[in-house]
Amino acid sequence: MTEKIRQQIEFIREIDKLKHVLRRSYLMNQERRENDAEHSWHIAVMALLLKEHSHEDLDMTKVLHLLLIHDLVEIDAGDTFAYDVKGYEDKWERELAAAKRIYGLLPAEQKEEWMNLWLEFEEGLTKEAQYAAAMDRLQPVLHNFYTEGKAWRANQVSAVSVRKRLAVLKEVSPALDTYANELIDEAVEKGYLLP
Amino acid sequence: MTEKIRQQIEFIREIDKLKHVLRRSYLMNQERRENDAEHSWHIAVMALLLKEHSHEDLDMTKVLHLLLIHDLVEIDAGDTFAYDVKGYEDKWERELAAAKRIYGLLPAEQKEEWMNLWLEFEEGLTKEAQYAAAMDRLQPVLHNFYTEGKAWRANQVSAVSVRKRLAVLKEVSPALDTYANELIDEAVEKGYLLP
Repeated sequence: MTEKIRQQIEFIREIDKLKHVLRRSYLMNQERRENDAEHSWHIAVMALLLKEHSHEDLDMTKVLHLLLIHDLVEIDAGDTFAYDVKGYEDKWERELAAAKRIYGLLPAEQKEEWMNLWLEFEEGLTKEAQYAAAMDRLQPVLHNFYTEGKAWRANQVSAVSVRKRLAVLKEVSPALDTYANELIDEAVEKGYLLP
Repeated sequence: MTEKIRQQIEFIREIDKLKHVLRRSYLMNQERRENDAEHSWHIAVMALLLKEHSHEDLDMTKVLHLLLIHDLVEIDAGDTFAYDVKGYEDKWERELAAAKRIYGLLPAEQKEEWMNLWLEFEEGLTKEAQYAAAMDRLQPVLHNFYTEGKAWRANQVSAVSVRKRLAVLKEVSPALDTYANELIDEAVEKGYLLP
C-alpha cells in the first residue's frame, strides 16, 4: 500500500508541470495567456454547468475525468495550436510518447485505466468523449470572443476554421451550437475573426 | 433557453477571475505562487487518483463538483491563509456574501443547487464533503514539502497547526493519513516546518 501511495504522490508532483504549459488563448482580462491547468479546471466546471443542454444521460464522473487529464500529455508534447497544420503532422506521435511516460508513473491498474481514458478522449467515439471535446473547443471560442479575438487576430484565424473545429458541438447540443455560431457571426462583424 | 444559456455563459466568463486569486503555496518548481484555478484542478485530479484509499463508496461526481467550485467565493473574498487567525474572524461573512453574488449569476435552479453544494463543502458533514476537504488540505502539504517548506517558513507555520488542519484526512483514509504524517515528521527534521 505504501509503495502505491508513493507512486501516486509522485504523479501528483509530476503533473504540477501542467501549470507551466501555456496555451494561445488569453485570460478574459487579457493580462496573460492561459495555462493548461487553468483551462482544464474551466472546462470541467463548464461540463457541470451545461450538461442539461446535451442530448443523453452522461456518465459525468467519466466526462470530468476525461477533461481533467486529457491535456497532461502536453507536459512533454507542448500545446499544439488548434489551427497549426504543421504542428498537427507529428502531434499524435509526440502525445502518445508523452502519455506512455506520464501515465506510466501510475500503479499498474491505474496506468491502464487512465491511458484508456486519454485514448477515449482522443478517439472521440463515446458520448462522454464527444461532450468533453465540445467543452474543450467551446471554451477558447469564449475566451477569444471576450478578448476581442486577441489570439484569433494574432494567428489570422478564420470563421471557417473555427466552425469546422467546433462541429462536434452540434452533435452534443443543438442549443449550444446555435448560440456559439451566433457568437462567431458577431466576432466576424466586429473584426475579431476573418470571415 | 437562449436566456438561460446567456446567463450560464456570463457565469463562465465571471469565474475566469479565479485564475487571478493567488494562494500562499508555491508551485512545485518554486517559480511563483499558485492560483485558485490551478489548485482546484489539482485537487480534483487527486480525488480521482486517491479514491481507492477512502473508506466508503463515494458519489464521485459530487466530490468533483464540490472541489471544482468551492473556491469561487474567493473571487470576491480573497484567499484566507489557513493559519491566519485574524483572517478567519470574518471569513464566513465575506464568503457568504461572495457566494450569494457569484452563484446568484446562475439560472434559478442551478443557483440553489450550486449554493447548496458550496454549503455542503463548508459544513463538511457528508462523506463527499469530508473526502473533498481532505484533498483540499493534503495538496498544500505536498506543495510545501516539495518546495522545502517555502510558504510554511515564510509564515512560521508549525507541525502542530498543520496536523490539526489535516485531521479530516484520518477520517477518510488512515493510509493517506499515515503517509502525510510521515511527510510532516520529515519536514520538521529538515527544518521546513516548526515543531
